[in-house]
Amino acid sequence: MILTVTLNTALDITYRVRTLRPHGSHRVSEVAERPGGKGLNVARVLAALGHEVTATGFAGGGTGRLLREQLARTHGVVDALLPVGGATRRTVAVVDGTTGDTTQLNEPGPVITPAEWSAFLEAYENKVRSSAAVALCGSLPPGVPVGAYAQLVRTARAAGVPVLLDTSGEPLRRGVAARPDMVKPNADELAELTGSHEPLGATRDARRRGAHTVIASLGAQGLLAVNAEGHWRAGPPHRLRGNPTGAGDSAVAGLLSGLVDGLPWPARLARAVALSTATVLAPAAGEFDRRAYEELLGRVTVTEEANAA
Amino acid sequence: MILTVTLNTALDITYRVRTLRPHGSHRVSEVAERPGGKGLNVARVLAALGHEVTATGFAGGGTGRLLREQLARTHGVVDALLPVGGATRRTVAVVDGTTGDTTQLNEPGPVITPAEWSAFLEAYENKVRSSAAVALCGSLPPGVPVGAYAQLVRTARAAGVPVLLDTSGEPLRRGVAARPDMVKPNADELAELTGSHEPLGATRDARRRGAHTVIASLGAQGLLAVNAEGHWRAGPPHRLRGNPTGAGDSAVAGLLSGLVDGLPWPARLARAVALSTATVLAPAAGEFDRRAYEELLGRVTVTEEANAA
Repeated sequence: MILTVTLNTALDITYRVRTLRPHGSHRVSEVAERPGGKGLNVARVLAALGHEVTATGFAGGGTGRLLREQLARTHGVVDALLPVGGATRRTVAVVDGTTGDTTQLNEPGPVITPAEWSAFLEAYENKVRSSAAVALCGSLPPGVPVGAYAQLVRTARAAGVPVLLDTSGEPLRRGVAARPDMVKPNADELAELTGSHEPLGATRDARRRGAHTVIASLGAQGLLAVNAEGHWRAGPPHRLRGNPTGAGDSAVAGLLSGLVDGLPWPARLARAVALSTATVLAPAAGEFDRRAYEELLGRVTVTEEANAA
Repeated sequence: MILTVTLNTALDITYRVRTLRPHGSHRVSEVAERPGGKGLNVARVLAALGHEVTATGFAGGGTGRLLREQLARTHGVVDALLPVGGATRRTVAVVDGTTGDTTQLNEPGPVITPAEWSAFLEAYENKVRSSAAVALCGSLPPGVPVGAYAQLVRTARAAGVPVLLDTSGEPLRRGVAARPDMVKPNADELAELTGSHEPLGATRDARRRGAHTVIASLGAQGLLAVNAEGHWRAGPPHRLRGNPTGAGDSAVAGLLSGLVDGLPWPARLARAVALSTATVLAPAAGEFDRRAYEELLGRVTVTEEANAA
C-alpha cells in the first residue's frame, strides 16, 4: 500500500464563465467539484494505475463531509482522513471561457489544534509501518508546526519506508534537512530553497541539503533528477498545449508507482513524465488521458549523465 | 406567520482578497458563509424584527445540507424547505480589499423535476392557508415553469392572503398579470417590464399590468409606491455610503412587517426605507444595523401625492 498525506485537503471547485470581468456579476455556466489537495490528487492517479493507496490527512466541517463523500466514489482510494473541528477549505478556479485563463481563489484551511496534530502523528506512525512508500504533499494548514514534514520524514525513515516530499517554503526547507528519499520541487520552489535559478546547480544544492534524490519539475522541459548515482533529464517527445493543473501531482504518482514496481531510475522518470504530459493533455483539470499516457510511455526521452560533482 | 418563498436558495459565500487580479492566484483572507436567496434574506430580517416567519422553497445536496444547518442556527426562522435531488447552488462574492468592489459568481441552481414542483405546490397551498402574508422572491431554478409565480400568486389570492412578488424578467411579467397585492421591482426590473426608464410612468404602467400596489426601489432615491389610493415617495434623510447587498430584501421585509402590523402606507414605506438604509450602513453584507434602523425610522421623509391618473 502507498500512503499519501494531505494535511490541507480541499474541495476543489471549478467554475466556467463566459468572460471574467472584475467587479461584474457572472452566471456560472459549468460547475465541477472534486476532492483536492496535492496528496489526494496523487492518490487518485495511483489508484487509476492500479496501486493500493490510502489517503490520510485532515477533513472537517460541511466541506470535509462533501469531500469524503466524493472520495468514497473514487475507486481504489482508501479514506484514512482524520476528522477535525474546523472546516476543510475550498479552492475556486474560475475559467474564462474566452481566453481559457484561470483565476484561482484559495481559502486558508481550518486551524488544527495541538490535540488533532498529536492524534494525526499517532495514526500516521501506525499507517507508515504497513506502507510500501509515503508521499507528503502540499501546504500546511494553520496550527500545524512548520517542522511537521521533517517529523513525518523522520518517522518514515525510522520505519525504513521510502518517503517523497512535495511542498514549498519553510516546510520544504525543514523537511529536506530531515533527509527524505525524494523531494520534487518545481523551478520556483527550488529557487526559493536554494537561491539559485540555474536548475542543475540548484538541484545539486537541494541534494546537499539532505534529500537523497532531487527530482525538479521544470514545466515543459520535463524532469531533472539528481542523486548519488548520477543525473538524468527526462522530457516529453514534443511541446504541448493544455492545462498544467495537477501535472506535478501526476509526476509524483509516477515516481512512487515506479518505485514500488522496482523500476530503475530512467524508467521511473519516463513514467512520471508520461503521466504528467497525459495530465496536461486531458480535457479536465487534474485528470490524465490514459491512452495518451500509454502512447507517451515509449516516447519520453531520458538522457543520463555521470556525476561530475 | 409570514411565509417567504425562495425557489432558488443559495449558500452565499463571501471571500475577501487583497486585490483581485484576473488570471492570478489569490489567498482568501476572510471567508463568510450564510443561507441566501432573496426569500431567506427577507425571512432573516423579519425574524430579527420579531415576526414569526416560515421559509419554504427547495434545498438539496451537500450545499443544501450546509444551508439548512446554518438556517437552523438563525433564530426565529422556521425551515419548511422541501428536499430535492439536485444540489443547492452556491454564490461567491469576491470583495477586493483595496477598492471594496465585489465580483459576483452565481451557480445556476439544481434542475427541479416535475414531481418536485408538484410536491412544492401542494405544500405551499397548505402553508399559505395559515399565513398572514406571503413573499415570493428571486429567480427560478431550472425546471420550474416560467409561470410559476403567477400560479403561486393565484393560490395566495384564492386563500385571501396578501402576496408580494419580487422577481425579474418573464417570471415577473407573468406574475404581475396574476394580480399580486404588491410587486417591488428595482429600476432595472421596472424598465425591463415596462420599456420605460421614467420611474413614475413606469410604476403606473406596472400597476396597470395587474399589481395592486407597485413599490419601486430606486437605490439612493428610496422608494416610489403607487396604488389606487395615491402615490408616495419615501427616502433616507441623507445620502449614504455602504454595501447595498440585501437592501432590496430588507425593504421587502419592511413592507411585509408594516402590512401584518396594520400600518398605513406612509408608515410601511418609512419602515422599509429605514430597514434598507440600515442594511446599506451595516458592515456585513445583508445584515442590518439595528441602532441605525431605530434612529432612521423617525427621520425617513415620506411625501404623499394624490393620483392625477
